[in-house]
Amino acid sequence: MRIAIIGAAGMLGHKLVQKLARDGVLGEPGVSALMRHDVVLSPAPPPSPFAIETHLGDLSTDGEAEKLVAWKPDVIFHLAAIVSGEAEADFEKGYRVNLDGTRNLLEAIRRANLATAPRLVFTSSIAVFGAPFPEAIGDEFLAAPLTSYGTQKAICELLVSDYSRKGFVDGMSLRMPTVCVRPGKPNKAASGFFSNIIREPLAGAEAILPVEDTVRHWHASPRAAVGFLVKAAAMGGAALGPRRALTLPGLSCTVAEQIAALERIAGKEVTKLIRREPDDSIRRIVSGWPRNFSATRAAALGFSAESSFDEIIRVHVEDELNGRLP
Amino acid sequence: MRIAIIGAAGMLGHKLVQKLARDGVLGEPGVSALMRHDVVLSPAPPPSPFAIETHLGDLSTDGEAEKLVAWKPDVIFHLAAIVSGEAEADFEKGYRVNLDGTRNLLEAIRRANLATAPRLVFTSSIAVFGAPFPEAIGDEFLAAPLTSYGTQKAICELLVSDYSRKGFVDGMSLRMPTVCVRPGKPNKAASGFFSNIIREPLAGAEAILPVEDTVRHWHASPRAAVGFLVKAAAMGGAALGPRRALTLPGLSCTVAEQIAALERIAGKEVTKLIRREPDDSIRRIVSGWPRNFSATRAAALGFSAESSFDEIIRVHVEDELNGRLP
Repeated sequence: MRIAIIGAAGMLGHKLVQKLARDGVLGEPGVSALMRHDVVLSPAPPPSPFAIETHLGDLSTDGEAEKLVAWKPDVIFHLAAIVSGEAEADFEKGYRVNLDGTRNLLEAIRRANLATAPRLVFTSSIAVFGAPFPEAIGDEFLAAPLTSYGTQKAICELLVSDYSRKGFVDGMSLRMPTVCVRPGKPNKAASGFFSNIIREPLAGAEAILPVEDTVRHWHASPRAAVGFLVKAAAMGGAALGPRRALTLPGLSCTVAEQIAALERIAGKEVTKLIRREPDDSIRRIVSGWPRNFSATRAAALGFSAESSFDEIIRVHVEDELNGRLP
Repeated sequence: MRIAIIGAAGMLGHKLVQKLARDGVLGEPGVSALMRHDVVLSPAPPPSPFAIETHLGDLSTDGEAEKLVAWKPDVIFHLAAIVSGEAEADFEKGYRVNLDGTRNLLEAIRRANLATAPRLVFTSSIAVFGAPFPEAIGDEFLAAPLTSYGTQKAICELLVSDYSRKGFVDGMSLRMPTVCVRPGKPNKAASGFFSNIIREPLAGAEAILPVEDTVRHWHASPRAAVGFLVKAAAMGGAALGPRRALTLPGLSCTVAEQIAALERIAGKEVTKLIRREPDDSIRRIVSGWPRNFSATRAAALGFSAESSFDEIIRVHVEDELNGRLP
């Protein structure tokens, strides 16, 4: 089985490469080759029982998607995107990368006229939803995004469903919860603070909280997120029927509950490093975000995430800090 | 006020031109100029108190949208589309016209960087919805189309909302009920029979019914549809908030109820001209279509349609047959 990962240099992409290299399989068949694709250089590849190729390229440029499809992947993970803050600030870039890039990929697959439609796991986002919301967003709630990023993701979901319905691809769009705790440096996502207020204090550094601690949001760990990707790719899209976009399970909790969990695990000295510094622009963006879901379809398909924020922090400590607390 | 109508040669487009020519106004301000735009020749323009220009062009070709925007319309009605059957049969043409054409228009408006964002009334469709449905589809039900046409309309709705949110345009997407009774010749829409079984027998001709008469669907007359367009343009999109797609009111009735209304109005000799000839391809398409809506938002905004199929037939007899029954 040949696997291509677009956006392989990103946080989730690299963790996915690591998991596949460790496991050597994706569902039943063994992995025979893996292509890492990104606009930026990927980290050094991990040791793996199969060859790992690395390609630099941008799907939104002419011919790039065709090159990727010519590599004959059986499974494509498409994780590449301009994040929400940047897509909001640079309208053209957001549409070019997040919409045209994905459409180019789907078109290249369609035009290749392959004997077997490749499997495509596309990372969508809960940003496809926009306020006002019900108490918990169900699987039949409308996608009414309040950002260009969310709009681009919602459009790609529709394309993935239509190309799948026509048999050109076997696609799935996974609406990821906000991945928390994100390791590494903050990126331009407006949701960054949800991770910053845990990761930075655990590393002995100050973190800024730009919103009230009553803000409720929807989280899953990077480990759970990689698990979603692998499970979806192994399962295939047919199980979803014609609605190929799936809201994934997560944990709904408030910032206050995040901080309380951090205090239980790491103590008051650590939570003291969280500095409250309200930012109206971030507060406004976040106020339009979903807070809670009822991810019934995904649960019925066997997807699961963490059930407490303590568990999310423990996953971070295990996977990123070698189990060490300050 | 300068008004451009894209798809002006179509049935609704021409009726809209006639109404504007007759009324001379759209909401408060008088109409000063009207541009009819289409890929095919429009019918002879009606007498009007303002100049009517006619342009031949295809929005999906380079530079065409820019030309239209350079004409400086205050209000744009965008009615042009490849219909459902054709978009399903010709995948590339459907995406080119229905998606790229609309996106070109939005981009031309954005790039023109106008002092006042023009008003855009875009005709969407209930084809953005796909089965399974609740008993009546509410305003918060997801768009999960089961055709490429429905997918293209749902994508354009998302674009119209995002471009409106950013202030580039003042857009609205109107999810039209199936327009019934469509005058003129049958087109390639799979929904054509809903009109054929009324129009043709009233004209003394046979009509084919390709589905069971238990099929329930959602209808409004051409007169109601033109009324929706004019009301939306006069009102502007701000009243809709950030969710710029609006499901319009209609009448939910079965084919049997359509036929019973026709019999009440025109007698048994007329309904005898309906010939049952099941067509599996049309039955399959129609089985994925919505049957009933609860169009609460639109009703609250003052949109209204017919309340019985008898009324829909009477509108047809008045507007198309000069009040004459066979």
